[in-house]
Parts: sequence; structure tokens; C-alpha cells
Amino acid sequence: MSASVLPLDLTAGSVALTAALCDIESVSGNETPLADAIMEALAGAAHLELTRDGDTIVALTNLGRAQRVIIAGHLDTVPVKENLPTHVEKDSLGDDWLWGRGTVDMKAGVAVQLTLAAALTHPAYDITWIWYDHEEVDASQNGLGRLAVNHPEFFVGDFAILGEPSNSSVEGGCNGTIRVDVTARGVRAHSARSWVGENAIHRLAPALAVLSAYQPRSVDVDGLVYREGLNAVGISGGVATNVVPDEATLHVNYRFAPSRSADDAIEHVRELFADFDVQVVDRSEGARPGLTSPIAQHFVAAVGAVPTPKYGWTDVARFSAMGIPAVNFGPGDATLAHADDERVAVSQIIECESALRKWLVGE
Amino acid sequence: MSASVLPLDLTAGSVALTAALCDIESVSGNETPLADAIMEALAGAAHLELTRDGDTIVALTNLGRAQRVIIAGHLDTVPVKENLPTHVEKDSLGDDWLWGRGTVDMKAGVAVQLTLAAALTHPAYDITWIWYDHEEVDASQNGLGRLAVNHPEFFVGDFAILGEPSNSSVEGGCNGTIRVDVTARGVRAHSARSWVGENAIHRLAPALAVLSAYQPRSVDVDGLVYREGLNAVGISGGVATNVVPDEATLHVNYRFAPSRSADDAIEHVRELFADFDVQVVDRSEGARPGLTSPIAQHFVAAVGAVPTPKYGWTDVARFSAMGIPAVNFGPGDATLAHADDERVAVSQIIECESALRKWLVGE
Repeated sequence: MSASVLPLDLTAGSVALTAALCDIESVSGNETPLADAIMEALAGAAHLELTRDGDTIVALTNLGRAQRVIIAGHLDTVPVKENLPTHVEKDSLGDDWLWGRGTVDMKAGVAVQLTLAAALTHPAYDITWIWYDHEEVDASQNGLGRLAVNHPEFFVGDFAILGEPSNSSVEGGCNGTIRVDVTARGVRAHSARSWVGENAIHRLAPALAVLSAYQPRSVDVDGLVYREGLNAVGISGGVATNVVPDEATLHVNYRFAPSRSADDAIEHVRELFADFDVQVVDRSEGARPGLTSPIAQHFVAAVGAVPTPKYGWTDVARFSAMGIPAVNFGPGDATLAHADDERVAVSQIIECESALRKWLVGE
Repeated sequence: MSASVLPLDLTAGSVALTAALCDIESVSGNETPLADAIMEALAGAAHLELTRDGDTIVALTNLGRAQRVIIAGHLDTVPVKENLPTHVEKDSLGDDWLWGRGTVDMKAGVAVQLTLAAALTHPAYDITWIWYDHEEVDASQNGLGRLAVNHPEFFVGDFAILGEPSNSSVEGGCNGTIRVDVTARGVRAHSARSWVGENAIHRLAPALAVLSAYQPRSVDVDGLVYREGLNAVGISGGVATNVVPDEATLHVNYRFAPSRSADDAIEHVRELFADFDVQVVDRSEGARPGLTSPIAQHFVAAVGAVPTPKYGWTDVARFSAMGIPAVNFGPGDATLAHADDERVAVSQIIECESALRKWLVGE
């Protein structure tokens, strides 16, 4: 066990475990204490074969079942915003909510998974549990991506479930995402004689106008409607307080329906910003819903809710690209992910655990 | 003498001295080695009474002359951009130029002043020479402003000359300058579900449109025409690469004719950005031309060129506010100040020294 954190009790129930997981701060890059605590907590489980790769943990059952399910979740969160430690509050309807960074994205999902990983010694499917690092940052750092390179043997299965927040219902596939830098250039000059320069920040005006006027599409893919989004996630420029700057950059994130490839998405953004230098910083393909296979349909029936589309990019796309049908299924309202008032309904954690348990034991 | 720099030779001539002053890097905040070297070089001048205040140096003659002239220049530069050490190049006409950071703004002017301060043991006017720190940054840090508080006795005189670049002709007064932060606010959200947030960067679009469409005025003040400018000098915003940001800020610099007060300038900018939160960061009044007094007219006649307006804000405004008529007079083309290709015509350094010497010895 890490000296710095309390031991985790995987029999405490998913709700208490969610709070315990959140209270071990694990902003991307700082997952080690949490991964240490999970390794320690799972060490006694004889039915699980453990592997660690950096701060990614794999726990495998090998029961010789006919089918194998991969169930995964990430350990990291976006930066804390004075919203830790967690606390429970009742809303105006008398329902309990667990507040704090990570409660939605996605430690409630991880808590459900860890609880079931420890408890289900004889599931109906063999299970490959994966908890990984660096999901909330650049795709190149993603722990699941690294694991796929270092341990491709773990990416064999008939179906994959990612515990990303989906209000404990099934969300199919995901939007793709790209990030580009849109740069305007000008001519540097003293701001007292600005007419001899060309202001690169002013030249970003039409790019901001494009963003501000943009009408994102909603696209039907295999029966689910995916909503897109085009957003500036950063802007920067400026040399000194008395200098007309010669460069200014807009950092743009485009989330696109899985009917469009990342290449097509890049082409679309290049057309929108045709007058600017556009550099691609990050790209991740989307994933189609993945609900057509029999095992997927059986899972959906067991959970008992109408599947909806996943808007955010999630690592289901990695499974999808490897030919493994994959869905998102986890507690929490994704619109509260990353928000200062991030919070999860306690009832959703319980529902999610119950539905997943029911399906995994073959009821 | 500072251990880290070569001693300065004030008899080497203004051109060689300009190169030597530039090659002692003195970006705002790092003036100490240069100020040390100047103190050391002036230490032997029996006709000068030296005072040091931080990195500001005052050298005074006390010859009992009927009139006193204040002659000042700043020691700091904007950041170096791979343009040091200095070097001399011929242009296509065969004329020599000294290239490098500070050559124009304003070490050529300081070199002329130091040369004459050391050489003129019996000038026709008593002279208060001032070389000061922190001119290129926020007005609150300005060394001349600090000196006026710590040593008001040095701000007594009949006329003031600031050696800011004016192509070795007389530039009267200066534009005023204000800086404001223009902030847009929104609602933070995950960029995968951007429709639940409000993008603060997108909301800056109309502010950039205002800047990009703005037509600056040209204003006649006491016979000189002042050209204004409104520029973004910085822009910032962004929380993380997958977050719709809730705040974005445009840093705006407005340079205004001396017929307008800083209060009026602020009012004008508030009107332009009425839909935004506008915070004033920095404000400096302009200065009217200051060419009406007999001593100013005598100086202009001695220099022998038609006065023109100064566009940039300079510390002549401080003298002007204290009731001391003041002009800018120094070598160098101000449009090359702060530029990557900053360079001064060698002939202008010589002209400037010659004209100033002629007037100071009473020819």
C-alpha cells in the first residue's frame, strides 16, 4: 500500500467506494497513489490475475467461459476546482448526491467495477477488467492506448463496456474528436505606431466569427442521433504590452459524428478556416453504436433501457477500431463531468452496480 | 564596476558607445549591470554631481547658469529577439547602420547624452542628466516616476529633452496611452457537450470585430497632427483542451492624441466595448507639443528642423505635467523600435550629437 493513502475497502459498497476513490486525488499524471491503493486492495483476490503497466491495472478471470467481456474505466480526473474532498448532499426532492471532482467522470463507474471485480468470483463470462491512466489529456498519453501496444493480448473479447458516465443507461459508440491550432500571422511593431505593423490578434476576428456563427450538425448513425460541436478551447497571443503582436493562435476542438472520419473532419475544419494556418494537434476517430451483435443486444436487454448516443469521445472508439463492439455504461450525468459542481446521484451508482451484476452473473 | 561587463569608454564617440551600451543586455528589470557600468564611467567627472536611485542615475552640473535643462533617457529595452550583439551593416546606398536591440529605443540617444555629459564641462545651461530604468513596462514601475517621488528636487528646470528616437529631429509632446482588459464570460462545460456551456472565447468575436474595423483618428493639437491607434496587445483564454472556457480576456492598448484626457480615453474604450467587462490596467496622460516657450523655440532653431508630433507615449508627459516644456530629440526611426530588425543609421547618431552639442555650448 502507498504510505500516503488509506487502504481501499472493496466490500464497502460502490457508493462508499466512489467517495474513497475520489478522495485520493488523481488528476492526470498523478494516478500512482490511486493505482497503488487498487493493486493493494485486489492483491488478495485469488480469482483475478493482476498485471500492472505504469498506472494501468489489468485484472483477468480465466474460468474458461465461452465468451469474454472487457470492462474498463479510467482513473484520472481533470484538475480539482476546490471540489474535494467529496461530500453527500440531499437535493430538494430528498435524493442523495455525492459531490466532488471525479464523482461523475468517472470514479463512480470505477467503484462499481472494482466492487464487482472483487465480488464476482464466478461470473457468466470471463472478464478482463482494465483501469487506466491519462484519459483526460492528449490522446498520445492515454493509458489504454499504451496498454494496447504493450499488451495486445488483453484486447481479445466479444464485447467491451466502458464505465463512462451514461446516467446508468447504455450509450452507444461515440463522437470522434480532433484538435487544431488556427494561427493568424501579422507584422510586429511598436503599438504607438501600429500602422506600420499588422495585428495578428485582430486578424483572428473572422476565425472567431466563424466559431460564433457555426451551427453544429446532428447526424443519425445506425439509429442513434449524434450531436456535434465546434469550440475554441484556448486562445493565445501577445508579445509585450506595447507591441503589436505578429502571431495569435486559436485552439479549436471539433467533435464529430462517427459517420465522419477524422480525415474528413480535418478537411471540414480546414475549409472553415481556409484563410489561416491550420495545424492538427490531436485526432481520434469516433465509433459507431456497436449494438448489433447478439451479446450487445443481450446486455441492452438485461439493462432494460433504450440506448442513446454518446456525444463525448470515449475509449469505446479504441475497442471499436479493434473490431470489439463496445458501449458506454456508467453512473452519472455526463453534462456534469468537468464542471465545478460535478456530482452523481447516489441512486444511479446503486442502479448501475445492480444491472451490471445481474448481467455478469447470467440472470 | 560590475564584474560582468566591460568598462564603458565615454570618449569613444557616440556610435561606438551606442554599440557598447546595447551589448550590455538590459531588458526591463535587468538594468543593474548597465547602471553599474555608467556610474563607474562617470565617477571621474569632476563637473558632475552623481546620485543613484535604484538603477536610475542623475548627473548634475552646478555652474550657476541662468537656465537649467533636463536631459533624460531610459536604460531598458524590450526583450531581445536574437538581435544582440550589435553589428554594423551597409545598406544598398552604402550607408552604415548599427543593428540590434536597443539601437533605436534608445541607447543611441543615451550614448549621445553620456558622451556630452562627460565632454561638456562648461555648457551654456546648467544640465540635469537623468538615465533611468523600467520605461518599457507598466507605468507604475517607471524609474523616472519613482525618481520624481524620491527626489522632486531634480525636476526643476526651464526645458526638458528626452532622447527618445525622433530621427534626430524635434518631436513635440506625445500621445497618451491606456491599457484595459476586456473580458468575456461564459459557462464552463465539457467540450463534448458544448451546448450546455457558453463559450467565453466565442463571445470575444464582437470585440475582435470592433478592433479589426476600428478607424483611428488623426488629431491636430497646437499645429501638430497626432495619429491614434487601438490595438490588442494580448489575448488569453482556455481551461483545458476538452473544456468550453468560461472566461477569455483581450488586452487592449489605446494611444490617444494629447487633446484627449486619459479619463476621456477610458470613456471612449468603455463605449466601444460596452457589452464587456472593461478593467483599466494602466493609464498615462499625453502631452501637448511644448514648443511655445522661448527656450524651446531657441532649441528648435538650433536643431534646424520642422518639429513633428510624437506618436508614442514618452516620459515628456511627466515633465509636461510638472509644467516643464519638453520635447523628444534622439537618433533613430521610432517605427523600428521594438522590431526584430531594429537598427539605427550611424549618420543620425552623429547628427544628433552634433546638434545637441552645438546648442548646449551656446553656439
